[in-house]
Amino acid sequence: MSSKKLVNSVAGCADDALAGLVACNPNLQLLQGHRVALRSDLDSLKGRVALLSGGGSGHEPAHAGFIGKGMLTGVVAGAVFASPAVGSILAAIRAVAQAGTAGTLLIVKNYTGDRLNFGLARERARAEGIPVEMVVVGDDSAFTVLKKAGRRGLCGTVLIHKVAGALAEAGVGLEEIAKRVSEVTKSMGTLGVSLSSCSVPGSKPTFELAADELELGLGIHGEAGVRRVKMATADEIVTLMLDHMMNASSVSHVSVQPGSSVVLMVNNLGGLSFLELGIMADAVVRSLEGRGVKIARALVGTFMSALEMPGISLTLLLVDEPLLKLIDAETTAAAWPNVAKMSVTGRKRSRAAPMEPKETHDSATAGGVASKQMVLVLERVCTTLLGLEERLNALDRAAGDGDCGTTHSRAARAIQGWLKEGPPPASPAQVLSKLSVLLLEKMGGSSGALYGLFLTAAAQPLKANTDLPAWSLAMDAGLEAMQKYGKAAPGDRTMLDSLWAAGQELQAWKKPGADLLQVLTKAVKSAEAAAEATKNMEAGAGRASYISSARLDQPDPGAVAAAAILRAILEVLQGQGV
Amino acid sequence: MSSKKLVNSVAGCADDALAGLVACNPNLQLLQGHRVALRSDLDSLKGRVALLSGGGSGHEPAHAGFIGKGMLTGVVAGAVFASPAVGSILAAIRAVAQAGTAGTLLIVKNYTGDRLNFGLARERARAEGIPVEMVVVGDDSAFTVLKKAGRRGLCGTVLIHKVAGALAEAGVGLEEIAKRVSEVTKSMGTLGVSLSSCSVPGSKPTFELAADELELGLGIHGEAGVRRVKMATADEIVTLMLDHMMNASSVSHVSVQPGSSVVLMVNNLGGLSFLELGIMADAVVRSLEGRGVKIARALVGTFMSALEMPGISLTLLLVDEPLLKLIDAETTAAAWPNVAKMSVTGRKRSRAAPMEPKETHDSATAGGVASKQMVLVLERVCTTLLGLEERLNALDRAAGDGDCGTTHSRAARAIQGWLKEGPPPASPAQVLSKLSVLLLEKMGGSSGALYGLFLTAAAQPLKANTDLPAWSLAMDAGLEAMQKYGKAAPGDRTMLDSLWAAGQELQAWKKPGADLLQVLTKAVKSAEAAAEATKNMEAGAGRASYISSARLDQPDPGAVAAAAILRAILEVLQGQGV
Repeated sequence: MSSKKLVNSVAGCADDALAGLVACNPNLQLLQGHRVALRSDLDSLKGRVALLSGGGSGHEPAHAGFIGKGMLTGVVAGAVFASPAVGSILAAIRAVAQAGTAGTLLIVKNYTGDRLNFGLARERARAEGIPVEMVVVGDDSAFTVLKKAGRRGLCGTVLIHKVAGALAEAGVGLEEIAKRVSEVTKSMGTLGVSLSSCSVPGSKPTFELAADELELGLGIHGEAGVRRVKMATADEIVTLMLDHMMNASSVSHVSVQPGSSVVLMVNNLGGLSFLELGIMADAVVRSLEGRGVKIARALVGTFMSALEMPGISLTLLLVDEPLLKLIDAETTAAAWPNVAKMSVTGRKRSRAAPMEPKETHDSATAGGVASKQMVLVLERVCTTLLGLEERLNALDRAAGDGDCGTTHSRAARAIQGWLKEGPPPASPAQVLSKLSVLLLEKMGGSSGALYGLFLTAAAQPLKANTDLPAWSLAMDAGLEAMQKYGKAAPGDRTMLDSLWAAGQELQAWKKPGADLLQVLTKAVKSAEAAAEATKNMEAGAGRASYISSARLDQPDPGAVAAAAILRAILEVLQGQGV
Repeated sequence: MSSKKLVNSVAGCADDALAGLVACNPNLQLLQGHRVALRSDLDSLKGRVALLSGGGSGHEPAHAGFIGKGMLTGVVAGAVFASPAVGSILAAIRAVAQAGTAGTLLIVKNYTGDRLNFGLARERARAEGIPVEMVVVGDDSAFTVLKKAGRRGLCGTVLIHKVAGALAEAGVGLEEIAKRVSEVTKSMGTLGVSLSSCSVPGSKPTFELAADELELGLGIHGEAGVRRVKMATADEIVTLMLDHMMNASSVSHVSVQPGSSVVLMVNNLGGLSFLELGIMADAVVRSLEGRGVKIARALVGTFMSALEMPGISLTLLLVDEPLLKLIDAETTAAAWPNVAKMSVTGRKRSRAAPMEPKETHDSATAGGVASKQMVLVLERVCTTLLGLEERLNALDRAAGDGDCGTTHSRAARAIQGWLKEGPPPASPAQVLSKLSVLLLEKMGGSSGALYGLFLTAAAQPLKANTDLPAWSLAMDAGLEAMQKYGKAAPGDRTMLDSLWAAGQELQAWKKPGADLLQVLTKAVKSAEAAAEATKNMEAGAGRASYISSARLDQPDPGAVAAAAILRAILEVLQGQGV
């Protein structure tokens, strides 16, 4: 069985993919009758050297993604993993010649088919009087012994596109560009590693790997690599790769030394997650730094893929200042990333986090009268919640994951622990702020965050005053924050239902001469009624909203808990005869 | 069993990935003690609004890839698919405030955890006197009926980063930016489709799909979508997606109408091949054009991934000219692509291929004397090769895939067919050029390309002259081209061995008074000896080089065929008494 693909037809893959890139990039045009993409502004290139590249499809964004001012003039694409037709290469050469360019450089990855087809097109074009040069790129560092066929062309080819493109844009002549990029190709190395294979549309994967194996030294056509190694950590794999690439006894090594400056490419071979790409990039930077290598520029992304192969290749290019200028030159090519100059590498680039600002609420000393009353309230709230643990869990099992009681008990124990550390601050605003941090860290989950939000917002009006109107305002602020960030409204079968009902009653505290206990008593009763009423509500927010829309016939445990907290507060204040 | 990943540890994934992005992007720095990345040049932002975003890891390059001038000031990352810690969000807010920025806008994807944690950090920061606003992005178009939790934040969030970034860079105030981007979030829609699931490091895939199924309307955390559909073509899938997104009866639709201008994002969810991404992009452009929608800008790439999920999401943002200016504004963010203005879409953007140039070799009419002799030579070469088919195949079975005779016979029949169409041109240069095209198209494979190259190059010296020195030069040119592009050298056990040996003898034709037949006879004998000698050679190039390095004990079939062709030519010329 062949693997699933998002395609229209196996035969049309290469055409459709190229058409898609052109359709989405206004700087490109297709050449009619050929699988060729060219810059739309060919006529602006009069007198400049044209750069054509290409090869089999399946390596996207290479090469069409690198067409643009400062990079390629055009590309010729073959079928998936197959060399393009000579006739199409020739048509591309003719088209750019017709636009008045000063000759064409063909940038060809070192594969027999590409060499022959591009070579033949070159010979034909020259026979027609068109000046054409050809550079064959071989940057593969996989093979340790000499292969007559030479090093394969891999992701480093993209850097050659860039260097040649910058030279052509600067008006350098054909032969000079060919000479200079040929030199550059000699100071590059690329090595790939993959977790598994890829499959050509309509076909099976090209090789199979066990669950604990990696393939090292891959090409970009799904062919097997030079070595199969046991699964290891990102650091170990990177060490293995860099050792292999920089091993001076290998004929295909790149001679990076301590003190060398390099351009680094960390290339997604197609199907690796960008999370892993970042992890591998991190490992490479650390390993290169450990070897005393200076990373002048780093490119991380998908540049030259092998369909959906879940792996990466690393490319190292030795650079000096003139070469870096070419790498840095401007380009409009869609797939060339924003590359910035490296001065200090990332591991050293960090900033100290700012200190938490000093508390500036008020100067009341800890342990005052207000604080004693607060301790009593908090203790009663905690014992209430601990006593409700089983009931809340039971209610939650009907509508959620059954841990509502556990969560509230965790909060209660955290508060008890805090109270044991010493008396809380005298300022209610400070107490609420501390509780907010505590619940957020120790209670956890959405409930912790929601209570944290409620308390943080509620603390604000209490900074200036702690009279009854301020407490009503605190309730309003808490409710507003809870609704805003939690996206629940009254009637959604959440803890908000109880708190909101209470908040409505507490509006009375804003009136002159309001009675604390009388109003609070009404508020608690209203909260309890609201909690009870949640049994007739459909869940509109929170986790319960995703699991069932049927009536649940039991009250919401969060609402029950919130009402119980309010009653606990009332009972303490009643007992104190406030 | 969990899936293979390139990581150091499951616990360290999010930290390592962020460190990697920062290590490779000199415009970024880490905030010590937090999973926070910030612009390195914070101090240049004095008096400007800071933009912070973030959320769970596993969506790379979102969000750290979008930090830079003109986009985000910084990001706060959680563990994989988990909301970041309030303390880290707050630390980031404090750090940018400390740099003298004029307040902070939090850009948050609509998920409960992110809303609560960013919301709480916002409330705390405000309590410290830092102006902070928050925009919650919900661009999901999957749900057709109202969900209280609202639309999820998906890839469209990246466009909000861009718009807000351009506004902040332009010096717009905090509240105004919050107001304007909140408006923009309302005119977006995103929908995803995937071939299979993804797996959090250390865990199993989050859902399973059959080989003929697709998941539609996915989130970006591996959660299942709203619908499972049967596998279909790219065109059919795109139609389904756009119908769903633009369906006016769906609460989460984006109201794109005929005549609307949109920014289109074709986003790789992680593990899809870029070939398929291009194919899908092509299908989307055609479908939108068919619906009368104008694509003002198109972004194709990986922007907001769900680890290695092999799928895509489409985002449509309704735009007018002022909004496009913000999309087009400059940014240094590494993962923002080079986006160019669309005028004419790709399907209409193409260029006529230039005509093949008229033949200008010479004016000899077809069917002259030279042509008759040429016909005899070609006919003899063809019958010779057909007679050798079985022997060549047998020789090839020992070292290759056994089709060498078949390949040469195919060439012979192609030439015979051509000769039947009428007399060949009188000019030898033209004959060689025609043969080159014929062999390339009909013989196929590397042999076809190599003979094509040989003949194309050999034709050049014969344009001006057809005397004996010119024929020797033709042989030289052919051999040079064959070596250059085929990368074989004499001694590599290929057809070049015979031809090269003959070419050495044919140097004598360059001397005044050289005898055609005498020299050619020596050349043929030398070629036959060289072919025979290949039996002692190790394969150094071509396919045989990859399969065995042992002595093969049989001559190379390509070399045998080349020598036989030369003998056929000699026999005709001897018979004609030239």
